[in-house]
Amino acid sequence: MAEAPRGTRAPLAATGPHVLRQINNTAVFTALRQAVSAIARVSELMTSTGLSRPAVTRALADLRDADLVELVTDDTARIGRPAQRARLRAAFGHVAGVDVDRHKILVKIANVAGGVLVTHRVNTPPRTTGPDLPALISTALEQAVAAAGLTHADLWAVCVGTPGIVDRDHGEVVLAPSIPGWAGLPVVPQLRDQLHCPVLIDNDVNLAVLAERWRGTAIGVESLVFVQWGERIGTGLIIDGAPYRGAHAAAGELGFLDLGLPPNDPTGRPAANEGTGPFERLVGAAAIHELAVAMTAGGRDRDLHAQLTAPGERDIAPLFAAAAAGSPVAVAVVDRVAARFAQGLGALILLMDPEQVVIGGGLSRAGDTLLDPVRRHLVGRTLSSPTEVRASTLGEDAVALGAIRHALDATAVRRVASIG
Amino acid sequence: MAEAPRGTRAPLAATGPHVLRQINNTAVFTALRQAVSAIARVSELMTSTGLSRPAVTRALADLRDADLVELVTDDTARIGRPAQRARLRAAFGHVAGVDVDRHKILVKIANVAGGVLVTHRVNTPPRTTGPDLPALISTALEQAVAAAGLTHADLWAVCVGTPGIVDRDHGEVVLAPSIPGWAGLPVVPQLRDQLHCPVLIDNDVNLAVLAERWRGTAIGVESLVFVQWGERIGTGLIIDGAPYRGAHAAAGELGFLDLGLPPNDPTGRPAANEGTGPFERLVGAAAIHELAVAMTAGGRDRDLHAQLTAPGERDIAPLFAAAAAGSPVAVAVVDRVAARFAQGLGALILLMDPEQVVIGGGLSRAGDTLLDPVRRHLVGRTLSSPTEVRASTLGEDAVALGAIRHALDATAVRRVASIG
Repeated sequence: MAEAPRGTRAPLAATGPHVLRQINNTAVFTALRQAVSAIARVSELMTSTGLSRPAVTRALADLRDADLVELVTDDTARIGRPAQRARLRAAFGHVAGVDVDRHKILVKIANVAGGVLVTHRVNTPPRTTGPDLPALISTALEQAVAAAGLTHADLWAVCVGTPGIVDRDHGEVVLAPSIPGWAGLPVVPQLRDQLHCPVLIDNDVNLAVLAERWRGTAIGVESLVFVQWGERIGTGLIIDGAPYRGAHAAAGELGFLDLGLPPNDPTGRPAANEGTGPFERLVGAAAIHELAVAMTAGGRDRDLHAQLTAPGERDIAPLFAAAAAGSPVAVAVVDRVAARFAQGLGALILLMDPEQVVIGGGLSRAGDTLLDPVRRHLVGRTLSSPTEVRASTLGEDAVALGAIRHALDATAVRRVASIG
Repeated sequence: MAEAPRGTRAPLAATGPHVLRQINNTAVFTALRQAVSAIARVSELMTSTGLSRPAVTRALADLRDADLVELVTDDTARIGRPAQRARLRAAFGHVAGVDVDRHKILVKIANVAGGVLVTHRVNTPPRTTGPDLPALISTALEQAVAAAGLTHADLWAVCVGTPGIVDRDHGEVVLAPSIPGWAGLPVVPQLRDQLHCPVLIDNDVNLAVLAERWRGTAIGVESLVFVQWGERIGTGLIIDGAPYRGAHAAAGELGFLDLGLPPNDPTGRPAANEGTGPFERLVGAAAIHELAVAMTAGGRDRDLHAQLTAPGERDIAPLFAAAAAGSPVAVAVVDRVAARFAQGLGALILLMDPEQVVIGGGLSRAGDTLLDPVRRHLVGRTLSSPTEVRASTLGEDAVALGAIRHALDATAVRRVASIG
């Protein structure tokens, strides 16, 4: 279903036949986008839209005339009239989803049915700052569009996901501590000038949660919390099926939660890094690395300590490998990390009461080695029966996929309405 | 506006003339319930519903025929046709709102326009438990209905607000630590048998937040957090104009937030009371009393200490009176309470990003003596510009008023639809 504005009420006024036809065309098109199989029978479309057979048939004819839909007559039906079936003309339109941070630009090109044609990843040069990004995004998009055998004119829309607090109306990033010089740039106007198509921008984690609900581990979940857990910690919220961003687009800022020091935790809070929040400094990837180095020192786990302190090495994957292999010190580190994280996540669950929590970001790669202790430490922190906590299955693709979904929702319905 | 189910989308199917007429009748009736003045012109109703003049006129005729609306012809118009105006026949229907806890039952009877006819308060006998409550509620309702000059047959619906987690579908309280023996009783079926009208039940704080948005200090606010701050701490949430209760009806359980001990706070966490949560034990009224007694001891404020420790006395009003009068010790106690409270409220604001926060419950009577320090301690705890924090203006009436609003929303539209 296209993302309707939140708080939409049933229209109160009677509507004319022209508007009804647009509404019906949009309903049938949306149902085709949602259909589980690529191709749907008229009877299935009647069920999913609530429309009568004549209304569905007329809408399909309109959509076919506009080249949006192909109709297929099913000759295999043995009795009665042959069943008519319909599918989207996937090649009719395309969108791009872009995932930007300081270190990389990830572009995906998809068709109107949401099928991904191309994934293109560019690592940004060292010391990239905000003002460098629009040109880098534009170049990466050009390369991706070319790799898909398309031109910019084939793009219905581009959606960019970025860290930070985003003013979607003005197409600007308002606050982005992790990318110096990025906040305040007129990103959307700049890209729109170069691409000549609608450009949308949203917070990366808000897009990732859309993707998890679309084709990740939380399909159809109505009330969902997605926690991006890596160097930084961000949260995307779905409430009653729609994204919730907060009154100032700042909902879900778990990384800035200040829990004070956990009692009996021997390591002090790491020194404040520029722009990071208290909870990120407590359980972000850098804090986990620091904790693991400290707890494996003094010969308590020489191998792991050596891996963690190799020159230039900040990767914490060896910690989870060692914990999975049964190293008591590694297990103890992971348990302490899980206990700290559960304190923050428990607060979020207690206040939001979601149906499901999905953990994404780099830490989600640790899977149940990390999430089982998190689940254990959540017991007693929440009032209702344990809320399901899952690892993301989309990994690094989540933000760009969510951007595709958002671009499709924002433009597909408008395209259909224009033919009504 | 009637409370629409969350996630309501525009209907996708074409609708027949009969259904349209019901929709239009409901729209006009809802607009009359919402009208700022008690009486509305046809032109105002056209604006607020988006309907044409003939459609509004026909709906008003239907509503008049069903005795729901009175039509008045305005003879004061000097030129053109006389303006027709309409108002609700307030006496047509009535609802009751009930606020229940272990210590009191507060009943309000209101007419369909939301005007309160009677407020009736009964203190429950000492050692009242859950199984005593249905009979006490029933008696209190009977007295209130009689005082309003009505009979039970005049009631369209009764809505009961109760502490705890409520299963609204089964009409049961699932968890209510503050009223022993209350959870699991078939409250709604029992009351329905005695009252012969629809009975609704909801969490008290969820109802209070409706009232604050209806006629309290947060009129029309789209994204709102209401914190009931007394012995217990509960939270009601409005998200994008509609109540948000969570996937397991457990959203907003701030009282159970576990923040650990605030650093540098000399008083330990008070011993666990049965069924209270960590944050309640930290900043509930009992914890504040205990902190005030400890900090005023040793002659640091003899007068206040004597007032706080008078036999049988647990009232903390003297603390706020002393702070308002400038007692340095009282100011220090209030400051520490505010710092603790701001840690929990700051977490809620950081995660929910509401437009406004309203503080209700007994502590709200302290007003700015308490809320100014709370606002000060919130600075730096939230990412966006300071979220407005206000004291409730409804006080003890909030829950019963919210229950009235909920009962009217739930039944008024159904009544109108039945005449379409």
